[in-house]
Amino acid sequence: MEDVVIRIHEQVKLKDPILIEGLPGVGNVGKLAADYLKEKLPAKSFATVHSKFFPPQVYVNEDGTIRLVSNELSYYRAQGTGQRDLILLGGDYQGISPEGQYELTERVLSLVGGMGVRELYTLAGFAQGHLVESPRVLGAATNSAKVEAMKKHGVVFSRNDPGGGLIGASGLFLGLGRLFEMEGACLMGETSGYFVDPRSAEAVLKVLMKILNLELDLSDLEEKAREIDRIAQKIHEAEQKPSGPQPSAPREDLGYIG
Amino acid sequence: MEDVVIRIHEQVKLKDPILIEGLPGVGNVGKLAADYLKEKLPAKSFATVHSKFFPPQVYVNEDGTIRLVSNELSYYRAQGTGQRDLILLGGDYQGISPEGQYELTERVLSLVGGMGVRELYTLAGFAQGHLVESPRVLGAATNSAKVEAMKKHGVVFSRNDPGGGLIGASGLFLGLGRLFEMEGACLMGETSGYFVDPRSAEAVLKVLMKILNLELDLSDLEEKAREIDRIAQKIHEAEQKPSGPQPSAPREDLGYIG
Amino acid sequence: MEDVVIRIHEQVKLKDPILIEGLPGVGNVGKLAADYLKEKLPAKSFATVHSKFFPPQVYVNEDGTIRLVSNELSYYRAQGTGQRDLILLGGDYQGISPEGQYELTERVLSLVGGMGVRELYTLAGFAQGHLVESPRVLGAATNSAKVEAMKKHGVVFSRNDPGGGLIGASGLFLGLGRLFEMEGACLMGETSGYFVDPRSAEAVLKVLMKILNLELDLSDLEEKAREIDRIAQKIHEAEQKPSGPQPSAPREDLGYIG
Amino acid sequence: MEDVVIRIHEQVKLKDPILIEGLPGVGNVGKLAADYLKEKLPAKSFATVHSKFFPPQVYVNEDGTIRLVSNELSYYRAQGTGQRDLILLGGDYQGISPEGQYELTERVLSLVGGMGVRELYTLAGFAQGHLVESPRVLGAATNSAKVEAMKKHGVVFSRNDPGGGLIGASGLFLGLGRLFEMEGACLMGETSGYFVDPRSAEAVLKVLMKILNLELDLSDLEEKAREIDRIAQKIHEAEQKPSGPQPSAPREDLGYIG
Repeated sequence: MEDVVIRIHEQVKLKDPILIEGLPGVGNVGKLAADYLKEKLPAKSFATVHSKFFPPQVYVNEDGTIRLVSNELSYYRAQGTGQRDLILLGGDYQGISPEGQYELTERVLSLVGGMGVRELYTLAGFAQGHLVESPRVLGAATNSAKVEAMKKHGVVFSRNDPGGGLIGASGLFLGLGRLFEMEGACLMGETSGYFVDPRSAEAVLKVLMKILNLELDLSDLEEKAREIDRIAQKIHEAEQKPSGPQPSAPREDLGYIG
Repeated sequence: MEDVVIRIHEQVKLKDPILIEGLPGVGNVGKLAADYLKEKLPAKSFATVHSKFFPPQVYVNEDGTIRLVSNELSYYRAQGTGQRDLILLGGDYQGISPEGQYELTERVLSLVGGMGVRELYTLAGFAQGHLVESPRVLGAATNSAKVEAMKKHGVVFSRNDPGGGLIGASGLFLGLGRLFEMEGACLMGETSGYFVDPRSAEAVLKVLMKILNLELDLSDLEEKAREIDRIAQKIHEAEQKPSGPQPSAPREDLGYIG
Repeated sequence: MEDVVIRIHEQVKLKDPILIEGLPGVGNVGKLAADYLKEKLPAKSFATVHSKFFPPQVYVNEDGTIRLVSNELSYYRAQGTGQRDLILLGGDYQGISPEGQYELTERVLSLVGGMGVRELYTLAGFAQGHLVESPRVLGAATNSAKVEAMKKHGVVFSRNDPGGGLIGASGLFLGLGRLFEMEGACLMGETSGYFVDPRSAEAVLKVLMKILNLELDLSDLEEKAREIDRIAQKIHEAEQKPSGPQPSAPREDLGYIG
Repeated sequence: MEDVVIRIHEQVKLKDPILIEGLPGVGNVGKLAADYLKEKLPAKSFATVHSKFFPPQVYVNEDGTIRLVSNELSYYRAQGTGQRDLILLGGDYQGISPEGQYELTERVLSLVGGMGVRELYTLAGFAQGHLVESPRVLGAATNSAKVEAMKKHGVVFSRNDPGGGLIGASGLFLGLGRLFEMEGACLMGETSGYFVDPRSAEAVLKVLMKILNLELDLSDLEEKAREIDRIAQKIHEAEQKPSGPQPSAPREDLGYIG
């Protein structure tokens, strides 16, 4: 078996497309944002990525049918002024080993490079270790011009954050992307890092919408964010009470949202 | 050395065979069921799978001879009305790394696909985390028609179970099987997850017998199940006693059965 | 770089040679025995095995020069009646991953198979978890005839030991050896498993000498065994004393012997 | 993707060059020394090494641009009497798996071997587990003549240190270097092993300057060493105080220096 198997369902010709990557990670911010974007544009799936660098796992859909874990590539054709064709990368997992991360990223970049991608944005969360009321969007980019362009869209470039650099797909797509002559930026929504964070994903999407000249209705994401808020509030109240058993269920619910 | 070495002892021609997979896993349910099926049909071994994705280990038989850990493929020719030719996959281990799981599954699917397999059933245990008196058989399938067919045989499709999907060979054979144009289902016997569970294997086999139009004498498996019950009962009694050393031997015995 | 690099220093023609494997493992019994055998025959090195499946490590000799970790193949030409040419495999490490174990074993077997090896003995320790005054030599073999032959040399075949089979090179050389049409046995000296055990190695060598019609002076090994005894005795006495700091140095010395 | 990708920015012809390796490791001694050497010579980068054996990580520069983790090869042309052309290897990481270590080392050796390297020095720290006021430079070499030559430069060869040999790039470059007909030595600065140690790097550089007939201004490194001293002193004082919160920041600062 090949290490990475990309099955192309539909041969697509795009004009100067931009790649948007959003895979699971800190607070699931990148995945939440990319999945929401795919649903609302909507973008249409054209290729599925299977790999031995993913876990040996299938998911069971609500109707009892199974689905092998994968990454998914979908596309959106520009429809308004100032828009560009888009390719979205989403999915269930990042590669589960360093080698797998490199291999998967390289294979996807090779494919979309062949489709004309020269610009890319990666979406991620940035764990602050404490609750964040109004998440900022931190940035990192492949060149100085892109840094300046991002600043104009409200992206914050902090001298010390992220101190250890970016680990995982969102960094690697930029780093390896340069070997494919692609330029771009990573948009990192601040998040606590303790649970999935639709509000941080919302902040990231707002920036991305400006970059891409997109209009998206963010109300469903806002609703998810409020749901998380309610659950977090319940946990907080329960933990304040001095006695009695702790309601563990709500805390677990945090993982289900999104 | 090749990553996976399949040694074929006997060239077999089968007619539209069905693959049944049962490897070690939760409660050893899948392996118990597949091994019992192989013994009682009986099915005849025609190929041995060795791999560097198995542990570097040999077992010592009772007569002092050794046997390299392996998976084993055996076949059964249809003998009654409504029966189909069968290929059984059993063995000592699943692949011990994610890459190994994918590679082994793909190699076996490739071989049996060449022998005409288009339908497959994978046998597994589903850990409930508590004792299960009358294990149900939960299911997951590759398509909706198969879901409906399984329901008619008493298989339970639960919206929430298994929540995290299926991890390991039983899921992967279905997931990768679709890339080989194979359809099928996973039959998961409920089990505590704490010890090997012949009763759960029995439940799985009862469903499988209906699917495959097989008649099997399940009394030996029932006997094993009662033996486990007796040991579990002894442990329970010992743990109820307020003092004295705990008899650890019986608990360990649970691992030997089967 | 190739996964396994075998550098052959001397092209050797041997007549129907027997392979003896003794690599580090439980109690270092196999390595102690094989190294002692190599020194006393003496056997002459003819090939060095380097591999990325060994740790990235060099040893520093007493004169300050370095040596890359390796396995070493050496040979001995039959000199007495009833003797056979021998190939010895010793070294610093077994492969440090399951894949590495398989790959290294396969490569060495392939080489010595080409040199005519059809018979092999692997030397190992068997951890009993308690002190063993007079270590027996337990066995496992590739066929029943070999089991019977070993019994005549005093090897013990126990229905329950080793219960989990043999893990590592000593088992794998037998298991994969069969794919190379080689027959043989594993000789396992009983040992506590807590420190290196020259006495167990001595027991293994006594059996091996009978099998191979060799006469070896075992007094140096006996001396090492007495040294270990003395250190163990000191530790025992120190641990009996009710107070004062424990002398940790002697215990560490156990690892240096050999 | 290839396991190791070496991008050559400038084709360089050197005369009988010497390789100097200094990658992250114990006390970061080797990296500190190699980076300082590169800056002060100065040496010019001519090749970048990317690999799936490095972490999937990018660093973010102070201006917000990213840089994929890598190793870097640079060169220096001999300018004074008795000098030799040099190739320096520095970078962010050693390979993060044993296989990666072997593969990366072999690939770099293969490249520089083709450029004429027959002599190499590897720079490292040697963890003593306690503070070292005046670090000695311990050595290990590929042959006895090199051992003697190193002794004349003040390198200490200790019969017992390092007892377990050298693990990682500094040892492996010597060990695999011999397969490329390269001779050389490892220079290990004594260090506590608890924090980055510019003073140990200084000791190593002093020896290296003698070997290579180089004159370097070490005052910047000395300044870094004094900075570490000051921080260590503050921590020491804080820990002497019997009460109050511990100032944790200064301790963390130790990791930033260098």
